[in-house]
Amino acid sequence: MQYTKPLANLIDFFERFPSIGPKSAQRMALHLLKMSSPEVQKFANLMIEAKEKIHYCSICYNMSQSDPCEICSNSNRDDKTICVVSETKDLLAIEKTNEYNGVYHVLQGVISPLDGIGANDIRIRELINRISQNEIEEVILALNPTVEGEATSLYISKLLKPFNVKISRIAMGLPIGSDLEYADEITISKAIECRVLI
Amino acid sequence: MQYTKPLANLIDFFERFPSIGPKSAQRMALHLLKMSSPEVQKFANLMIEAKEKIHYCSICYNMSQSDPCEICSNSNRDDKTICVVSETKDLLAIEKTNEYNGVYHVLQGVISPLDGIGANDIRIRELINRISQNEIEEVILALNPTVEGEATSLYISKLLKPFNVKISRIAMGLPIGSDLEYADEITISKAIECRVLI
Repeated sequence: MQYTKPLANLIDFFERFPSIGPKSAQRMALHLLKMSSPEVQKFANLMIEAKEKIHYCSICYNMSQSDPCEICSNSNRDDKTICVVSETKDLLAIEKTNEYNGVYHVLQGVISPLDGIGANDIRIRELINRISQNEIEEVILALNPTVEGEATSLYISKLLKPFNVKISRIAMGLPIGSDLEYADEITISKAIECRVLI
Repeated sequence: MQYTKPLANLIDFFERFPSIGPKSAQRMALHLLKMSSPEVQKFANLMIEAKEKIHYCSICYNMSQSDPCEICSNSNRDDKTICVVSETKDLLAIEKTNEYNGVYHVLQGVISPLDGIGANDIRIRELINRISQNEIEEVILALNPTVEGEATSLYISKLLKPFNVKISRIAMGLPIGSDLEYADEITISKAIECRVLI
């Protein structure tokens, strides 16, 4: 049996989302069809509204309703420290800690030659411009500890060398609550390499 | 930091879907915002269209664009055998095997007192009516082997006793490719209990 056409289209669309496979897409589409019509209409409107209202901040490329975004326009934040992340979701993860009071720069990706993403496809040039035009004291590289994240960090740190700016990166090591026994070798090596004096 | 309002609304809505937690909802919402406006519009339209066009079949309560549904109106199918499932997704799972040529009855749930779902909240009455008004030879109960599924199967089989109809249920036992060592006790007991002569 084939799915009835409108259902098939809906499932196809749900499958486009990251980490949603065919089973999840089917489950979500069927769940949607079980909702009431006004609810479905509301969901559709929410999507369109969010897409219309939310844009990239012209300073840090965070997603926001306002431009500059809530963070860039907040005078209580330290705009001399820029934390560089690859995606908005990473910015949100850092914000949830309530530990960081600087501003951000969202690259909107990482350099990944396998996926055809080069240095010019992400917001690196904008970061360099921002640093050359403003008085920045420190740039914290907070990219994921993956091959692509590492390569991007290295690339950016080289570009930043000529500027009079501190460059740091977030620590790699054992996550809290984890177990040495089950940690992988690279994580343990990094944890030893980056040990701190107490 | 709080999410910007339209984003928060969108994430809330995604979280309502089954098996979508806060992280997945955030990921899906951010992915949606990265789509182009026409794509978002298309997705919204697909949802509304699917909701408008797809209704329950008045015979078997499958979801379909037509009424009766494609299965009920297919004259090549054996309408004397009814397979009872709890959800449309179970019907789809059985259809994918291409092994079953009868028709279905989708209960739209199972009896679950803990969730406040009684026998009258699902399509049991409609099943009984269907059996009393048509010449049905066999009813195959294909509910999930959970406490609720079992209870519902038992309940239906009792209701069907007065009718001159064969009642069967799908086999419970070890799934193909699994390992006795890792199977749970109840599954193994069931597999032994339901052994077949070869």
